[in-house]
Order: sequence, then C-alpha cells, then structure tokens
Amino acid sequence: AGSFNKANDNDVTELPNVADMLAMDIEINGTSFSLEKGEFSQYNRSLNLKTGELCRSFQWTFKGESFAFKFRRFVSFADLHLIASEVEITPLSGNAKVIIKSGINGQVTNSGAQHFEEGEKRIFDREFLQMLQTTCESGITFVQNTYHDFSASSLTMKSRFEMDRRKVLMIYETEVAKDQVLRFSKLSNIYTTRDKEAASMDLDALRTHSVEQLKAQAAKSFDSLLSESAKEWAKYWAEMEITVEGKAFDQLAIRFAQYHLMIMAPKHDARFGIGAKGMTGEGYKGHSFWDTEIFLLPFFSYTHPQIARSLLEYRHNTIAGARKKAKENGYRGAQYPWESAWADDGEVTPVWGAVDIVTGEATKIWSGFIEQHITSDVAFAVWQYYQITGDEDFMVKHGYEILLDTGIFWASRLEWNEEKQEYHINDVVGPDEYKEHVNNDAFTNYTAKWCMENSLFYQKKLQQENPELYQVLDQKLNLSAEMPLVKERFDQVYLPEPNAQNVIPQDDTYLSLKQIDLTKYKNQEHVGSLFQDYNLHQVNQMQVSKQASVVMLMYLLEHKFSPEIKKANYEYYEPRTLHDSSLSLSTHAILAADIDNLDLAYSLFERAARIDLGPKMKTSDHGIHAASLGGIWQILVCGFTGVRMVGGELRINPKLPDEIEGIRVPLRWKGNKLSIHLTANFVEVSNLGTTSVSFSIYGKQQQLEASKTLRIKDYQTA
Amino acid sequence: AGSFNKANDNDVTELPNVADMLAMDIEINGTSFSLEKGEFSQYNRSLNLKTGELCRSFQWTFKGESFAFKFRRFVSFADLHLIASEVEITPLSGNAKVIIKSGINGQVTNSGAQHFEEGEKRIFDREFLQMLQTTCESGITFVQNTYHDFSASSLTMKSRFEMDRRKVLMIYETEVAKDQVLRFSKLSNIYTTRDKEAASMDLDALRTHSVEQLKAQAAKSFDSLLSESAKEWAKYWAEMEITVEGKAFDQLAIRFAQYHLMIMAPKHDARFGIGAKGMTGEGYKGHSFWDTEIFLLPFFSYTHPQIARSLLEYRHNTIAGARKKAKENGYRGAQYPWESAWADDGEVTPVWGAVDIVTGEATKIWSGFIEQHITSDVAFAVWQYYQITGDEDFMVKHGYEILLDTGIFWASRLEWNEEKQEYHINDVVGPDEYKEHVNNDAFTNYTAKWCMENSLFYQKKLQQENPELYQVLDQKLNLSAEMPLVKERFDQVYLPEPNAQNVIPQDDTYLSLKQIDLTKYKNQEHVGSLFQDYNLHQVNQMQVSKQASVVMLMYLLEHKFSPEIKKANYEYYEPRTLHDSSLSLSTHAILAADIDNLDLAYSLFERAARIDLGPKMKTSDHGIHAASLGGIWQILVCGFTGVRMVGGELRINPKLPDEIEGIRVPLRWKGNKLSIHLTANFVEVSNLGTTSVSFSIYGKQQQLEASKTLRIKDYQTA
Repeated sequence: AGSFNKANDNDVTELPNVADMLAMDIEINGTSFSLEKGEFSQYNRSLNLKTGELCRSFQWTFKGESFAFKFRRFVSFADLHLIASEVEITPLSGNAKVIIKSGINGQVTNSGAQHFEEGEKRIFDREFLQMLQTTCESGITFVQNTYHDFSASSLTMKSRFEMDRRKVLMIYETEVAKDQVLRFSKLSNIYTTRDKEAASMDLDALRTHSVEQLKAQAAKSFDSLLSESAKEWAKYWAEMEITVEGKAFDQLAIRFAQYHLMIMAPKHDARFGIGAKGMTGEGYKGHSFWDTEIFLLPFFSYTHPQIARSLLEYRHNTIAGARKKAKENGYRGAQYPWESAWADDGEVTPVWGAVDIVTGEATKIWSGFIEQHITSDVAFAVWQYYQITGDEDFMVKHGYEILLDTGIFWASRLEWNEEKQEYHINDVVGPDEYKEHVNNDAFTNYTAKWCMENSLFYQKKLQQENPELYQVLDQKLNLSAEMPLVKERFDQVYLPEPNAQNVIPQDDTYLSLKQIDLTKYKNQEHVGSLFQDYNLHQVNQMQVSKQASVVMLMYLLEHKFSPEIKKANYEYYEPRTLHDSSLSLSTHAILAADIDNLDLAYSLFERAARIDLGPKMKTSDHGIHAASLGGIWQILVCGFTGVRMVGGELRINPKLPDEIEGIRVPLRWKGNKLSIHLTANFVEVSNLGTTSVSFSIYGKQQQLEASKTLRIKDYQTA
Repeated sequence: AGSFNKANDNDVTELPNVADMLAMDIEINGTSFSLEKGEFSQYNRSLNLKTGELCRSFQWTFKGESFAFKFRRFVSFADLHLIASEVEITPLSGNAKVIIKSGINGQVTNSGAQHFEEGEKRIFDREFLQMLQTTCESGITFVQNTYHDFSASSLTMKSRFEMDRRKVLMIYETEVAKDQVLRFSKLSNIYTTRDKEAASMDLDALRTHSVEQLKAQAAKSFDSLLSESAKEWAKYWAEMEITVEGKAFDQLAIRFAQYHLMIMAPKHDARFGIGAKGMTGEGYKGHSFWDTEIFLLPFFSYTHPQIARSLLEYRHNTIAGARKKAKENGYRGAQYPWESAWADDGEVTPVWGAVDIVTGEATKIWSGFIEQHITSDVAFAVWQYYQITGDEDFMVKHGYEILLDTGIFWASRLEWNEEKQEYHINDVVGPDEYKEHVNNDAFTNYTAKWCMENSLFYQKKLQQENPELYQVLDQKLNLSAEMPLVKERFDQVYLPEPNAQNVIPQDDTYLSLKQIDLTKYKNQEHVGSLFQDYNLHQVNQMQVSKQASVVMLMYLLEHKFSPEIKKANYEYYEPRTLHDSSLSLSTHAILAADIDNLDLAYSLFERAARIDLGPKMKTSDHGIHAASLGGIWQILVCGFTGVRMVGGELRINPKLPDEIEGIRVPLRWKGNKLSIHLTANFVEVSNLGTTSVSFSIYGKQQQLEASKTLRIKDYQTA
C-alpha cells in the first residue's frame, strides 16, 4: 500500500505489482506440472476467513502416475512483511524425480507497464535470495527476500541457483519414494524504503535488517508463524463479527466482506487510503474514490474507529492537493480529487477510457474534471465519524479544517443564475456517470448545500467553544473573509424539488430525455453491455442510469425526505438503473428496506453478495469490489438491523427480511461497545461499555446504562 | 531492427519486443482452446525454408468433441512491414460455437522491461485496429495495424471490440456446423518513425499511410500475398543455394542456416547491424559483436556483396562512437565497442552478469572494457570484403578510413615493456572469455599487429594511387602525425612464439596454470556447467577455455602458421576447450579439416548444426545462434570446399569428409559468379561471370575464362 508510481509520463500513478515470490515451477519425472495437463481429482481449495490461511489440495494423474499435492499459504497479520507457503508432494504410484524452481520473479508488470528499475540481486549464505527494485518515478526501493526450508523432509536435496534478468531462483532436485512426502516451506518478506520503520535506516541497513528478520522467522515452523498470525486475526474478529441466523451463504457473505474490509485497510499508516479494489487487483490503480467515505467508512467508524480515523487523516494529509485543485479551477477552499493516491499527487483520474463505438476513438473520462460531489462525501464522512465516535481530538487536529474548507469550496463553486435569482451548480457529473455535463445534479446540489450548512454550524461552534483553534484556522483558511460568503450564498442555493409525481429531477434535463426499452440491458450477462450498442454521447441523451444517484441522496440525507418521496423516487429511478456500478445494489437494498419492500431488499442483498462471491468467475478479474463489500456490511447493519446516525443521534429501526432469522451485530457508539441481537420477534441491545448510551427504536427514545441489556419485543408495533 | 531503446537508466539499450499481433485466443463451446488440454493427434508443424511459410495442423479432442485446426503464417519478404496468418477450424463431431479474440496486445515486455509508453488506440471503419506506442528513451513511435478477414467463410460473424490497457481487440463469434470450415486471415503491419520511408511524413501521415497500405494488402488473398513473398525469396535462393549430396540432415542444416542468415540481415538499411541472435530472441539484446565480422560476413561477402557492404557501412556509421571510446580510454584512432547498437550509442556491453557462486553477488562483465580484439576483427572483415569483391567505391567512401583509424588505435594502445624492450598489450580478454585480465593474448597481439601492418600498406597505397583521398583522410585522422608512430612501433610488437612443443601460449600465463579433470564438463548437458562448481576468479586460474582462441587465430591468419604448428595447437587447446560459446564448434571444424582430420571435422559440423536444429529444445530459447549459423556456411564453403581468400587470392583446397558425397557452392569473386561442384573424385569450377578469374587449387594456379568450366580430377594429388 502507498507505493504509488507513474510508470510513464503518459500514465497515471498506480500501485505497482511487486516481484512474485509465490509462484513455483514444479517438474515431476521430466514433465512440468500443470493442472491443464492430465487429470485431477479430489480438488479442494479453501480460504479460512478467520485465520487467513489458503489451502489447496488435489490428486493429479499424468500418464498413469498419480501424485497428491497440498499447498498452504498465508500473508501474516502479525508481521505485515511476511508471506509464507508450505507445499507437500506425495508420489502415489512409484518413485518420482522432483525439481522445484522457485525464487523471486521481477518480470511481472501492471498489464504490461513496468514500474521498477532492476536493482541488485544477491544470494546470502547460499540460501537467502534477495532482490532490489526501485520504482522509476517515485524512487521507492523494494527489498524482497526469500528462503526455502526442506528440513521437514528427510530427503537429500541437490540445489543450484540461477540469475536471470529481474529474476533470482533456486533449483532443488530430489528423488521421492512412493508414498513418501516431500514437504517444504517458502518464507518471503518485503520491505520498502517508504515503510515508516525504514525512515531511520539507509538502504544497506534495510537490506541487512530484512534478511535478519527473515532468518529469525525461518527459525520458526510454518505452523507457528501461522498461529501467530491467526492470533492477531482473532482480536479483530472479536471486535467485528456479525452472526447471521439463517442461510449459510448469508453468514458467509458478511464474513467474506468483513475479511476483505480488514485486509484492505492500511491500519498501520495514515499516509495511505483504500483503493477501489483494495489490494486485490490492478483495477482503478489503487486509487481512493468516494467509495471509501460513503461505502467503507461506516463499517470502520462503527467497528474499528482507530482505522476510520486513520483513513480520514489520510484525507487531511491530502488537503494541500485539494486546495491546489480548487485554485487551478478558479475556486477557493478544498476541492478533493475524484481519484486520490499519494498525498502530493492531487487529482490522479486518468483522462482516457474505453473506446467509443461510433468514432473508434478512446472516450474522455470527465470524472476528474467535473465529478465534484467527492468533496461533500469527504465532509460527510468526517461528520459521520465524529457523530459516531465523539472523537474531538481528531476534529481539533484534522476534522474541523476539512469541514470548514469544503464549505468554502462550495460557496466559491456556485454559479449565479440571473434569471432565476439563485445559485446553480452547472456542468457536473453526479453519482450517475451515464449523465455528463449536467446542470443541478440533485445529489451534488443537496450535498453541497448540506456541506455549507455544516461548515456554518461548526464555524459558530468553534467561535464559541474553541476560540484559539478558530483563530488558528482563521489564519490558515481566511475564515473571516470566506465564511460570510458561505452564509450569504447558502440560502440561495437551488435544490431540485419533487414534481407532481413526487419525483425529484436527477438534474435539469433527465426527466425530459427520451426513454428506451432497457429490458435487454437490465438482463445483461456482463455490465456495460449498453456500450456495445450506443456511445456515451447517445447514452447521455436517454433516461438510463448507471447507479443510485437520487436514491443515494435519500440514504445519506434521509431526514430531508418523507417516506412517500423516497418510495416515489425509488420506483421511478430503479427501473431506469442498470446497476453497472457495483456501488448501486447495496444502496438500493437499503432503500428498499427503508420503503418496507423487504423481499426486494433481501434479493438485492443476495445479488450484491454475489458480485464477488457468486458463480460468475470473471467479475473479480480486476480485483474485488471494495465499496460493494462495505455495502454488504451496511445492508445488514444500516439496512436490516436499521442502525443509523441521524442528526448525531443513534437510531435503530430494524427491517428484518423473512429469509433471515436473526442478526447479531457488535457496534461502537461514542466509545461504548454495544451488542445488538435482532430476530423477527425482538430486538435486544446490550451496553457492554462503561457509560450510558441513548438511542431511539421506532421513534421511542431509549436510555441504556452501562452493562445493561434492553429487549423490546414486537419492535415494529411496540 | 534498429529500434534500440533503453528501458531504464540501469539497463543497456536493446531491441524492444513489439506489441503482439500474432496471438489469438480461441474459445470453442465455452472452453478456451489450448494444446495443454485434452488430446491432440496428427500434429504437424513445418517451416518452408524456401518460401518462409510456417504451417501447423493437428486434430484436437476435448471432452469427446474433435476439431481440425490449421494455421499458416508468414512475414513478407516482399513487403517488410507485413505479417499474415490464416486459420482454419473445422468441427468434426458436431456444431460448435467459436469465439475468436484477436487484435494487438502491447502488454508484452522484454523479460519484464517495458520499452514503450502507451499511445493512442483507434479503430478505423470498425475493423482496422491501430495502436501506437513510443519507445521511452529513443522516442521511436511504432504504428501497428491489424485487420481480420472472414470473407473466405460464408459464416455470419457477430463482432464487438474491446480496449484494455495497451490492448485493442476484436471479438468474433459464430456457429460452425459439423465439417464446415471456419477460415479467416489476419493481416497486420508495423511502421516506425525510424523507418527511412517515414522520414518525410509526420506521425498523422504515417498513421494514414500505414492503414492505407493495410487496406491495399487486405484486397489481396492470403495466398497471393504469400506468393509475392515467395517470389522475392526465390531471387535470394538463386544466388546462394548450396546443394549437399549425402545425408538429408546435412542439406537441411545448410538450408536452415542460409534461411536464418537471410532473415537476420537488415538488407534495407545500413544504420543497422545484425544482433547475436538475429531477430529471433532477447538474447544479447540485438547487439552486434565480432560475430558479424568474423562469422557472418564471409557468407555475405561471397554471396550477397551488397548486404555485406551495408553491414560494413554500419561499422563506418558507428566510427564516431569508436573514436569516443578510444578517447575515453586515453587512446587515439577508432576503438570499436565490444557490443554495438544504434550508431550514436558507443559501447553498450552490460556491466553485470551471472551470479558468482562464492560471493553470491553478480559478476562483473569485463568484455566492454577490455575485450579489444573486436577492433581488429572489424578491420579484418573490411579487408576481406575488399579482397573478395574488389569494391573500391566502398573503400573510398568507408573502408580506408576504418583500416587506417584502427591501425592508429592499436599503435596508441601498445604498452612499452622496458625490460624486454618491446610493446605488449596487457590486461585484456581475448576470444577465450574464461581468461580475464591477461597479458599478451596471442589472438589480440597477432591481429593487432596485422591491423597496423595493413594500415601502413593502405597508407602507402593511397598516397601513391589516390592522393586526394589521402589528403581528406589526413585532415580527418591526422595521418601525418599518427602513421609514423604506427610504423615506428610496428616492428616492436611482441608476438607469442611457439614453444618447444610448437604450442603458442594463449597468453603470458595460460600454459603455467593448473590443469583439472574436465571430463565432467566436456560431457555436460548444458553449457556453462563449470560455474555450478567454480566462480570466474577460480576459472581464470585453470587451463580451461570457453572457445577457440589460438585455434581461431590460425584460421584468420592462416598463412602465418605451418601445418605442424596448427596441428600441435589444435591438439593442445581443443581438449582444454568446453565449447561453451556457440562460436567454437565451427572454427574447430574448419581447423580440423585444415589439419586433415576429416572425421573429426564432420562430427564437429554435425554438432554445430545441432545447436539450433538438434533435439535439445531449450538451446534456442533466447534465440538462434547467428554466428554458429554463419559458421555452418563457413564449414561447408571454407572448410570442406576449401574456399579461402589468402593474401587477396582465391584458393580452393577441398577437404571433403567421407560422409558427404558432393557439394555445389555458388560464389562471387570480384564481380564474377562462380559455381563449384565438389565430389570425392573431382572439383569442378564454372565461371558464370563476364571476365576471367584466377585461383589456385592445391598450390596450382588456375585461370578460368568467362563462361568456362574447369574440372580437376583427384584434386588432392593432381
């Protein structure tokens, strides 16, 4: 995480794929082993979501000879540098000559883009392989080490080594008797000069340190290293584990989501955000989007506040880039980049995307220029985190500055419409990216106005409660000059109002665009099928949406819209939405619960869960969908369990679908740990903390003392 | 050829792998086709060396369904930009749904090093794909186009396209009935901004031109494009074809060698040399070594003088870099780089090589610093070309300058030994690269002295016969000051003399080094096995050689050594030589013929032929061995047929091994075309030219008028 680099001037910065230390070439009796050859049976691959151990075993038969294989592997949660694997090969039909080629392979690229300059390759003590590579633009040196341990087998291994371009390998050769087990482990570690712990070391010291660390780990067995890692995992599961009573798949879905939410979080360093694919693929280049604030932050704020804080500190670390972006566009305050990487980078959205089927040229991506709601999303997440945790220290050091400077941005961004005598926001892309260059996108206008309102509120609060901090921020942000403008313009910001059918226009023109039959695309096999028939210019002219936009607005600013309006908008927009973004289904699931369509809510939950856990094997080719996994947590907690922070207050309005018998949710609220147990018949809240907690259930205010449990039966009618 | 680029500051310049336009992904009935899956039969792959057509056909059975496949492919010899392939797929068991994914894939690298910045991707007329890429350091833009033609099948093709990073693809889908043939062709072309024809075009013009060219080619059938190419090949075969009467493998070996010699020659552009692997692999990075001058040039000088001239003009184009190298080393004149790439690059030998098994560190490659005989090799090839062709125009424009300036270099390079009162050449690597930092390497000293002698000869000749040119060169090379030094020092250059056993010491210390049992390494499976046991420092201390060195000297300067000395040295050095360089076997084969050991000569010929044409499938992984293929031609022509230029005269002393019944060799000598037919009983020389040709056969001078044939029976005793 955080090792961003630009491979070329033409490219945008991205996370580089590091040299591969997992792959091994296995040759048996002269044939290089591959599952594509011969036949295999008893194939089993399992990932233990509780410990992070990946196991694969099978029996392989080639030209009449059979072999049993077992592979185990984990990346340590106790030592973030460590990668371990263990291999077992057992000949079942007769003796076998086995050759293992394994080491460090730096010939990998990011879809052909090479980020590294080759550095020194070295072999220490004839068995510790080391390779250095340096990113070509950001100048980060990666030190990678690997070591093979054959001591578990009593076999005599013949070994030699090979250095090739960007490659250093060991080649082991042995004879394995029938039914004898060739077992060995491979331990590897990765250090970089960007690591916090490397700050005090020069490269030579880091090289020595990394080899010494590996030698120390090599003194332990694979199993003991795995158990150290599993112990660390157990701590996190104790904090976050959700139990779903009902179908096993639903339990698996939330566990899988939480597993990924934990491994994607850079909990050790506030200089990094979370990429849209976590660390699991090249998609979106490791960049952070609004996905983090709107889809992932709620999980962390309610479950691991220290990680949520780190992620928001990352946004504070990037505020200089946000100010630069505002200035370059002729605005003031902080305008957050649509895509964000290393703190200094500013806007990193690529400019060119998929091919236009009409012109044959690449399509321009406008998000980096005009998808501006990200600035509101960051402010929203800061506010939400503050309300959930009450972390005043964070606000003083980071939060207030973000809230004030984003309000200032929006005030400067507004455009005065002389005819209507109001402020408009023109030429934007809202959350629905199938509509470019629109005016007064509802989501953008509502959240911008909310942002200004919020900044005025906290200006006043600081002036009254923390005048010293106010003074510091005044100096820094020029509040005395900027905030009066925010106040003056606030009332005149235009908000699209519901029409006669209670539908809020998504933007100035959406409702007047032509409607086409979307059946084919709603039933599509692969997302984005619309673009095999139309180009983006044509799509811009139709009532068709990529994802939740007005519907998303009704989730974030839910207190501003009545149930009737929510229902009318859901029913208008959902049929026009292709869910071509993985951010769409979870929001629709929650809103379906809000409008009491629980069957629909549950079916959308199942669909969302299948994005990364379903039978279509290619949907996660470019990596898992981080926001969707955060959305799955939100469906269960904010949707079905009905946990929401509304205006700073905790509200628990459960909406349990029939398919789920019960849910147990752990939650942190302003420093106290709560446990909620929900079934069709009751909701039970336990306060495991040390102070009293207040919340409402279906409009009824509750006060729950420390160590007490409250059970309400028939909660919907109670 | 010639598109050299440095991927990184740490790398040396090399030929980049361009975007792949040959690969296709074929999906049949939902399974992606691979020969690793299922079973195949009737597999046949053949390369027609006369036309350059590669064919592959087989029957593939997967899950009970069978399919016939046929692939044909060629790179045009008539239009160097054009690559064509044709595919046939026939379902044999039932109807099949076939999906073809094919286009331009720029995700390829050179073993992980990426040379290109991604450029624009474009689709013209919905079927002509274009991708631009620019080399990151040398700034050469490659324009690549591809087009698919399904018109040969009457099938309805559904098509769509896909753009990914560094990739643009078409995806075709169709249903093929049992026994119906899905036949289609793919035509692609490559242009670069470094092409001579691109000099007058800007990039837009080049893009348009390249697409127009492809459209014009697309109007022709695959077969007619192939026949245009085959016609061009036929012209070249008429000039060079050698017939071997005897074993089919021997005929194949020379045809294979000549095929490669032709495809590796950049006959269209004197700004390029030939890489040590031709264009067939990444090995040696496309750099030119002495391989070109000593191993390849004889073929071209005797067969295609215009190509030989182009290759020597390349050396003249790089003379500024050679002067720079001399100057940087404190010498004068032209010191040719050990490895040569683009004209301006100068020395491009990499500095670090394979791992040292003792220290675990990479070994320093000294060739670029001290393997200095390359300068003599270039001069030798210029002189040899001149003697064979009589091309005075080349000498005036390029050749004399090289001959004089290399003589000047050697005079400046010499080191005075006060004790012995003679000039030494210390601290070099000779042709035997297993001896580094040696003094008075025999090959280096003899050829250096020859070089000085030759420069004095041509100085005198020019002064007398072409005083204007002499004056121009005097101005340029400062001959008036430099040549007296060459003359003064020439006599005092030390040459290692044969010892009591007639053995010329390879260098000052070789004969006194310890001798080890080399049996294991002489019988090795893979070259270089010595380095699994010893490091280069240790190897430097043993009497073990990588390749012909003294033996090579006796081939190049054959008139300086008696038959007895040749025999003594061959018999001393060969047992100490591991032939770890592919340059070794052919030289030993020729010398074995010279010393009348024809059985040995033939067996070495067979071994040399099997380097790239033998049963060991991995020997050519990094590319074919250009010098070895040139060596195969030399064994047949200079060895067995005994054709040599000695002191400017043509000598034909045949040495036909018993295993070969006859050889027919076409040859050019000073503008006349000769045809030699050799059998065990006679040698027949026909003069197909227009003027009289003189030569000797076993010491007897012959004069052969135009259009006459001379047959000499029992030539060895005649």
